[in-house]
Amino acid sequence: MGIDDLPVRDELRGKTPYGAPQLDVPVRLNTNENPYPLPEPLVERITERVREAARGLNRYPDRDAAELRDGLAAYLTRTTGHPVTREMVWAANGSNEVLQQLLQTFAGPGRLAIGFEPSYSMHALIARGTGTGWISGPRRDDFTVDTGAARAAIAEHRPHVVFVTSPNNPTGTAVDADTVVALYEAAQAARPSLVVVDEAYVEFSHRPSLLPLTEGRPNLVISRTMSKAFGAAGLRLGYLAAHPAVVDAVQLVRLPYHLSAVTQATALAALEHTDTLLGYVEQLKAERDRLVAELRATGYEVTESDANFVQFGVFDDAHAVWQRILDKGVLVRDNGVPGRLRVTAGTPEENDAFLDAVRELKKEQSA
Amino acid sequence: MGIDDLPVRDELRGKTPYGAPQLDVPVRLNTNENPYPLPEPLVERITERVREAARGLNRYPDRDAAELRDGLAAYLTRTTGHPVTREMVWAANGSNEVLQQLLQTFAGPGRLAIGFEPSYSMHALIARGTGTGWISGPRRDDFTVDTGAARAAIAEHRPHVVFVTSPNNPTGTAVDADTVVALYEAAQAARPSLVVVDEAYVEFSHRPSLLPLTEGRPNLVISRTMSKAFGAAGLRLGYLAAHPAVVDAVQLVRLPYHLSAVTQATALAALEHTDTLLGYVEQLKAERDRLVAELRATGYEVTESDANFVQFGVFDDAHAVWQRILDKGVLVRDNGVPGRLRVTAGTPEENDAFLDAVRELKKEQSA
Repeated sequence: MGIDDLPVRDELRGKTPYGAPQLDVPVRLNTNENPYPLPEPLVERITERVREAARGLNRYPDRDAAELRDGLAAYLTRTTGHPVTREMVWAANGSNEVLQQLLQTFAGPGRLAIGFEPSYSMHALIARGTGTGWISGPRRDDFTVDTGAARAAIAEHRPHVVFVTSPNNPTGTAVDADTVVALYEAAQAARPSLVVVDEAYVEFSHRPSLLPLTEGRPNLVISRTMSKAFGAAGLRLGYLAAHPAVVDAVQLVRLPYHLSAVTQATALAALEHTDTLLGYVEQLKAERDRLVAELRATGYEVTESDANFVQFGVFDDAHAVWQRILDKGVLVRDNGVPGRLRVTAGTPEENDAFLDAVRELKKEQSA
Repeated sequence: MGIDDLPVRDELRGKTPYGAPQLDVPVRLNTNENPYPLPEPLVERITERVREAARGLNRYPDRDAAELRDGLAAYLTRTTGHPVTREMVWAANGSNEVLQQLLQTFAGPGRLAIGFEPSYSMHALIARGTGTGWISGPRRDDFTVDTGAARAAIAEHRPHVVFVTSPNNPTGTAVDADTVVALYEAAQAARPSLVVVDEAYVEFSHRPSLLPLTEGRPNLVISRTMSKAFGAAGLRLGYLAAHPAVVDAVQLVRLPYHLSAVTQATALAALEHTDTLLGYVEQLKAERDRLVAELRATGYEVTESDANFVQFGVFDDAHAVWQRILDKGVLVRDNGVPGRLRVTAGTPEENDAFLDAVRELKKEQSA
């Protein structure tokens, strides 16, 4: 008796759940987590806020998460210089749930979404989960978005939702404002359609956020997360910024009271400690740059990275190399990009362990 | 610039978000919350467990929520006498997310679900949100399920998912095991299809859980929540029990890491205090029975209730009566059932305030 004996949807038959292997390895650099635990004063602030929330846990949480959206809006205003208010912000259990709500509202059965691949593979999976058709758009060989080719794909397929990931996962590649504007205009001319800029890793970028582009562009959405820069992958807090009408629209499909009182309390505590957490981001950017430089010095080909991870190669058999690095006690990620692997920027010690492993590998290969 | 100026799906146009009015009223008996705050020792245990979780919050949570599923399985085994293991349990952010995952897996575009209405209105809304067609099945005038009519509706429409809510919301009506077996057999003969028994309120019932019926019935799912009996509406923790193959199947559509580390920690703490929380359930059952008796003594027609709420009437204009009770400082729920309102069993004091209000109303009507 297994899945295929049940009356599941046909397109799910033979599939396996999404998720990186969760292996018990000394150095885990495979899921783009922030390696720095939350500072102890923040841990204490979380427990204070959660204690307060727990005393009212018999009641449903604030369905509109008003205080949290105020806090996220203030953070975005402060870090981008673009004025953002609560009405322009929406939050959910991870940016995956934000994206799922957007697809339920603007895509879904009989509609199409496009992404420029390789990119964050959950975009295509959430499309499938919401009954949305998926178009795999092109990238150049250097993993940047070719604006002309992307515009042509939009004009040809007329998708209802366009995903632009900047910085892109798993390649690390950022997209500039001109490209986003060009794709937005192509998407409006084609249908009009919603353009979602997934900025999960933007705090690690050399370039500013694309958030100011939402001004005057009601079909442009910026998606964010507290998993990476805020060092809170375990919290599952994603959010978006867009025109208030987009925020109103996703509430037609959001599950009521989707965001628990403990999640709201914990996220609010983390926002109080923004400065400390952004300090870690600076350290990780420096480590990311060190990884790029050292990998290149060792003879690897490295994709330009604006994120907290680095894509490197080129390998005849990337999965075999992934296994060999794992055998040396370091877990990196094989995202299925031919000839490439991805390593998350960890602590200096973790990165040293990784660099030692790949230098050894180079020596073994040339021996 | 509003929702209708955006490229949202056509079926969402003109709709409003689900949710009871959140009004600031002295006595709130409108959302079936448990009126008893968590006991202080449990609040402390939650903060201890969350402190521990917060120290690892930079890492993704346990994607499989193994410890939590063990705890829920132990709770089900203990309270139903039916042996349940982790492999038979799945958890998500509220039973709404559990039901959404089930519909994404077993229903969705081109497929149908049926419920026997009036019932929990989110069933139909989650069907819409997942692209599933919705069939409104019948109930008798006394709000019980007519097995013959229900079987006929299943045979006629051949739905892919059948919802049975026991005790039913908003009527309070329970369904007996024979009826569920008959509907399950009809559903298997028709297709086969998945039968979901929504037991959100079962701890308040005079009858035992229908969970043992899952034995030998792989297409039968029991849905549960910690919002009601566990007094943790703010936690958003729903779960299901079913054949392990069903648990494997929903993982094909679940968003990875959907359940945060703080949610898992808080739920585990609450499970440690099961006995205290089930003590409150006994008090609420007694109060529910008192509400039924007093409402009948006052001259209202009351539907038999196995839940922590009571449906009463009959009114020519239920919404006008809802407003008049609200004017007396008591918020009850107008679920749209013609001529009826629903009141949640609160504390003895809250229930007294409600009973005073509706007794006054009766006097005003006969004056």
